[in-house]
Amino acid sequence: MKRFFASDNNAIVHPKVMAAIMEVNNGHTISYGDDVYTKETIELFKKEFETNEIDVFFVYNGTGANVVALQALTNPFNAVICAQTAHINVDECGAPEKQTCCKLIAMETPDGKLTTELIAKTLHAVGDQHHSQPRVVSITQSTEMGTLYSIEELKNICDFAHQNNLYVHLDGARIANAAAALNCNFADLTWKVGIDALSFGGTKNGLMFGEAVIFFDRSLAKNVPFIRKQSAQLHSKMRFISAQYKAYFENQLWRHNALHANKMAALLSEKVSKLSNIKLTQKVQVNSIFAIIPKEWIKPLQKESFFYVWDEENSEVRWMTAFDTSEEDIDSFVELISEYNAINILGNCDI
Amino acid sequence: MKRFFASDNNAIVHPKVMAAIMEVNNGHTISYGDDVYTKETIELFKKEFETNEIDVFFVYNGTGANVVALQALTNPFNAVICAQTAHINVDECGAPEKQTCCKLIAMETPDGKLTTELIAKTLHAVGDQHHSQPRVVSITQSTEMGTLYSIEELKNICDFAHQNNLYVHLDGARIANAAAALNCNFADLTWKVGIDALSFGGTKNGLMFGEAVIFFDRSLAKNVPFIRKQSAQLHSKMRFISAQYKAYFENQLWRHNALHANKMAALLSEKVSKLSNIKLTQKVQVNSIFAIIPKEWIKPLQKESFFYVWDEENSEVRWMTAFDTSEEDIDSFVELISEYNAINILGNCDI
Amino acid sequence: MKRFFASDNNAIVHPKVMAAIMEVNNGHTISYGDDVYTKETIELFKKEFETNEIDVFFVYNGTGANVVALQALTNPFNAVICAQTAHINVDECGAPEKQTCCKLIAMETPDGKLTTELIAKTLHAVGDQHHSQPRVVSITQSTEMGTLYSIEELKNICDFAHQNNLYVHLDGARIANAAAALNCNFADLTWKVGIDALSFGGTKNGLMFGEAVIFFDRSLAKNVPFIRKQSAQLHSKMRFISAQYKAYFENQLWRHNALHANKMAALLSEKVSKLSNIKLTQKVQVNSIFAIIPKEWIKPLQKESFFYVWDEENSEVRWMTAFDTSEEDIDSFVELISEYNAINILGNCDI
Amino acid sequence: MKRFFASDNNAIVHPKVMAAIMEVNNGHTISYGDDVYTKETIELFKKEFETNEIDVFFVYNGTGANVVALQALTNPFNAVICAQTAHINVDECGAPEKQTCCKLIAMETPDGKLTTELIAKTLHAVGDQHHSQPRVVSITQSTEMGTLYSIEELKNICDFAHQNNLYVHLDGARIANAAAALNCNFADLTWKVGIDALSFGGTKNGLMFGEAVIFFDRSLAKNVPFIRKQSAQLHSKMRFISAQYKAYFENQLWRHNALHANKMAALLSEKVSKLSNIKLTQKVQVNSIFAIIPKEWIKPLQKESFFYVWDEENSEVRWMTAFDTSEEDIDSFVELISEYNAINILGNCDI
Repeated sequence: MKRFFASDNNAIVHPKVMAAIMEVNNGHTISYGDDVYTKETIELFKKEFETNEIDVFFVYNGTGANVVALQALTNPFNAVICAQTAHINVDECGAPEKQTCCKLIAMETPDGKLTTELIAKTLHAVGDQHHSQPRVVSITQSTEMGTLYSIEELKNICDFAHQNNLYVHLDGARIANAAAALNCNFADLTWKVGIDALSFGGTKNGLMFGEAVIFFDRSLAKNVPFIRKQSAQLHSKMRFISAQYKAYFENQLWRHNALHANKMAALLSEKVSKLSNIKLTQKVQVNSIFAIIPKEWIKPLQKESFFYVWDEENSEVRWMTAFDTSEEDIDSFVELISEYNAINILGNCDI
Repeated sequence: MKRFFASDNNAIVHPKVMAAIMEVNNGHTISYGDDVYTKETIELFKKEFETNEIDVFFVYNGTGANVVALQALTNPFNAVICAQTAHINVDECGAPEKQTCCKLIAMETPDGKLTTELIAKTLHAVGDQHHSQPRVVSITQSTEMGTLYSIEELKNICDFAHQNNLYVHLDGARIANAAAALNCNFADLTWKVGIDALSFGGTKNGLMFGEAVIFFDRSLAKNVPFIRKQSAQLHSKMRFISAQYKAYFENQLWRHNALHANKMAALLSEKVSKLSNIKLTQKVQVNSIFAIIPKEWIKPLQKESFFYVWDEENSEVRWMTAFDTSEEDIDSFVELISEYNAINILGNCDI
Repeated sequence: MKRFFASDNNAIVHPKVMAAIMEVNNGHTISYGDDVYTKETIELFKKEFETNEIDVFFVYNGTGANVVALQALTNPFNAVICAQTAHINVDECGAPEKQTCCKLIAMETPDGKLTTELIAKTLHAVGDQHHSQPRVVSITQSTEMGTLYSIEELKNICDFAHQNNLYVHLDGARIANAAAALNCNFADLTWKVGIDALSFGGTKNGLMFGEAVIFFDRSLAKNVPFIRKQSAQLHSKMRFISAQYKAYFENQLWRHNALHANKMAALLSEKVSKLSNIKLTQKVQVNSIFAIIPKEWIKPLQKESFFYVWDEENSEVRWMTAFDTSEEDIDSFVELISEYNAINILGNCDI
Repeated sequence: MKRFFASDNNAIVHPKVMAAIMEVNNGHTISYGDDVYTKETIELFKKEFETNEIDVFFVYNGTGANVVALQALTNPFNAVICAQTAHINVDECGAPEKQTCCKLIAMETPDGKLTTELIAKTLHAVGDQHHSQPRVVSITQSTEMGTLYSIEELKNICDFAHQNNLYVHLDGARIANAAAALNCNFADLTWKVGIDALSFGGTKNGLMFGEAVIFFDRSLAKNVPFIRKQSAQLHSKMRFISAQYKAYFENQLWRHNALHANKMAALLSEKVSKLSNIKLTQKVQVNSIFAIIPKEWIKPLQKESFFYVWDEENSEVRWMTAFDTSEEDIDSFVELISEYNAINILGNCDI
């Protein structure tokens, strides 16, 4: 029953989601998304996104969502502009390059956030046949560094992109955490600011499997059924994905879950930031904490409560809360880490 | 609660599988397959396959399993030999070509089964730089036409392939139905006859999602973790796939399910074959029935109980049973179709 | 100085072409096609094709031309329909599959010629996400079997294709031989009948290197500069390709060369068809002869005058003439082969 | 007859190379590299490289050489480490990503040269399935910035790479200029320091077309015939590439040409570096000069003598000499630019 701070995908499936799965496990139903459950759920997406002008495609996971979205937006000779820390750049084993055939232009950032200035730097060779042609800006909200774009920042990036003949793809693996933190709806973070295509995540916020790719410019979606199938991302027993999202949207379970995860991270960061040997390296805006800790803590601490090292060289680690993190989990982790801190204060510590 | 004969993937998730999923939904566990549940389940695979010399990788679906397996066995300049009716050739929207970059050499067969003679015909240009180099024979057991390779036929194909420097990939989306029909174990259909890599399916036999790719020559598996991730086939919350297979193997639930589905198909075929206007076109060896029926039946019959047309030109349809098909389902379908038949006998019918 | 009948690409570079190359070898000129020579040559293409509404791109070879053309016409989830004997299907080591990511649907034909009936057979799954979507019909003129589509046949195929939302690509590696044989111009074989994109060959008819891809619907060409570069088919010192085509078009050198090659094939076929042990298997319409000869002739005959075996099993060989084949070459080959024939008449011969 | 300083690929074909092409234009010869000329030339490569343990494959151009070499060294889930300024990263329109499916990890450098420190930074995720696995270090000699690796630097990089299970690919589009500048042979820059695969360029140093890919570990070459063909890089009339290299190696024409080009660059840089408004930005080690000049010069100067802007923002331009650059060309260009400089001295100039 133990919970730790390694990743929000270490969490369980929310009981309400599980119940929704059980509920549809009944009789035969047509496969591949032509079932009534899926149709109903897509209507719920429209409601939640406050528009009928969307196309929604379920896929298996976040990498699948990203590569399906990017294939819909690009030709092989295009380039996708992203932050160096973007999941598509560092955590997908080259899936975007292989699946889209495109170049990724990865820009260094301090906080995982692209800016219009950074994007502008990549545009010097537009129209020149020798160079991959930038076509998509891909940003992540909340970012892989646990930071947030403000709604205004999103709008600026989308405006700049569109002025430069670029689409904007949003990797929303944790869009729920972002919407919860910014106290807004999904629409406010997406089509209302100009996002063209969205990888909409649920697995990190209480689902079992299945993400969605959403297009706000429906003309971009016309080939997606084929792209999805060719990318091996079309599930046969689709009702079991659709049912999860039904529960996820009911009474905004997604917001409830995300708010809780965010709150737990705020609590944990508040407590550990008081410890003398810990230095937070990023703002804590959603559900992750990046911190530099003494190198010699890492191995023994991981043994007691597993987490990931983010930057080995700098002894930077990541702690992440989830919808099922409890205050007791926080307390016992803080207690544990406080012991380390106490010893370190007495001894010698090089951070 | 209605059940029909469209596909075995229209069926529910078996209650024991569902229960197994529920059981692991508890506390945090490490993601991406490093969890204890997955480790345990892989041991169960070894037991079920009667060997420790296998590598098992969970993926999302059958197409995912096939493309991961084929990538592990090929270079882009290779060719994969298969039957024209193979799922990889006609039902995956070109995923094998895109993911492997290989050519598919698809041979016409009367019954979905490759033969050594057919394979031999594709080998005339070995070593010639102008031609895609055959490297893999991919066969399906049971086939897409509902037929079976005998164990001896499998062995002959594997022997011939290996003599010609070819690997053998088995698409086992319905390997359970095959093992049930042939009254044997998975080992008898795979490594014991010489299969090199297997797409092991469960979704069509009572699981929710998640198939496995299994390598019997472990040297072929060394790059598969990367191939799987780059193919967007690595699930984060892996325990929910692993748990399903635990239930699937317990007391050979897989065999129980498959035997039932096969039995229902036998029953249905026995009954419909007596109807004067129906002509079966393939042996009924597992859980599907291919039949030519009067063209004018198709639309109205589909409306009452949906199924797929296999060959429009010849008015050939496919009926498929599943683990949850009941004798009552059969009876009411036969009753329905008998009414059509009765009318046709009196009228004029061109089949 | 020896010439044989292996392939038209075994021939020399025509002296006039060589002279044209020499002529431009003078001073610096801008690279990658922005030079004055290339601009002039593209005007010559327009004149030769009787239209200004074309886009012309030089590439390196026939495979390069085909894959650049097909990439411009397809998305990865598409299928390209062709004859089983098509160069793109059997002689390019899977380049079309790798470069386009598409499936090739290769139809069996007696003579290397697609028909509307054959194309129609591939169209049953249009719009179904499970299947590669046919998008291009690729035909070869003259075909790999040395046969010709009549202008009417071309028109029928193009009309049928366009009615079915398919583009038509013409592999014109030997379009000069076709135009010479049909006594028409390039326009008559291409845009006038509805061809959308053409691989225009010159190497087999007297050039050194460099083919052209030509689009008759210019909207299809807009991405081609990037596709060509990404396909590694953009030459830096472009003037040396352009100069060749200048010579090629001057006084229709291409027609002169092709007529001669065709004439030599007619002469050879006329003579060998009289030999009792040789059976021609295809009409001789351009510059190649397919013939079944006694198996035991092949090895010794190849030693004296090399040629390719087309179908080992059936002892079918291909003899090909070129623009530089002389009547003496024909005579001495016929003399040689007549000696074989004489011996065979006396002995026992199994063809 | 005009010559300018835009690129060494704006130059002519060396007359001796042209003569060699003429010489082989005689009679039929087998195509695709099985001809006697090609065999002879490959022996010359062995002599020039001082080893029999090489495999040599002719391709069409530098991009073709790079993508064939990289395909031979990688799997799609690999990463290729290079400098940000590498030709494979910025000048090939994404060909490496598309053809290899790999990620490029492009490191910022001041001078176009990778270091072991930079390479080391990319190796943190070896063995982790989430990340593209580094497999090749690709360096360019001389670099795209006109700089040189010393032989010792090359050796250090190769040693470090091999210790870390990485291959080293050398992009030798201008290896002749490097060997000339370092007064050494090709062997000294390649297998003797540990290079595994080489893109060997000739086009920029007096050839018409055709580069070579050379493998020093012959086990890496076994699939290259197929890779080359599938990459559309196999020339039919191969003798016309082979003949060029024969001339290129005769009396080390390559060194003669490269020495001259280098000498002309030294002369030009010496002269322009004295001008007050020009600031060289890179060492002039081979045949290119990078300089910051007043922004307002660029357009009018280009009109009189074309060259490329390297970095628009910083008003940095590139001037390049070739084997056919004459002292008179230098003199008249310096005269021209001196006029600009004189005006600027009197006026106001912001560089």
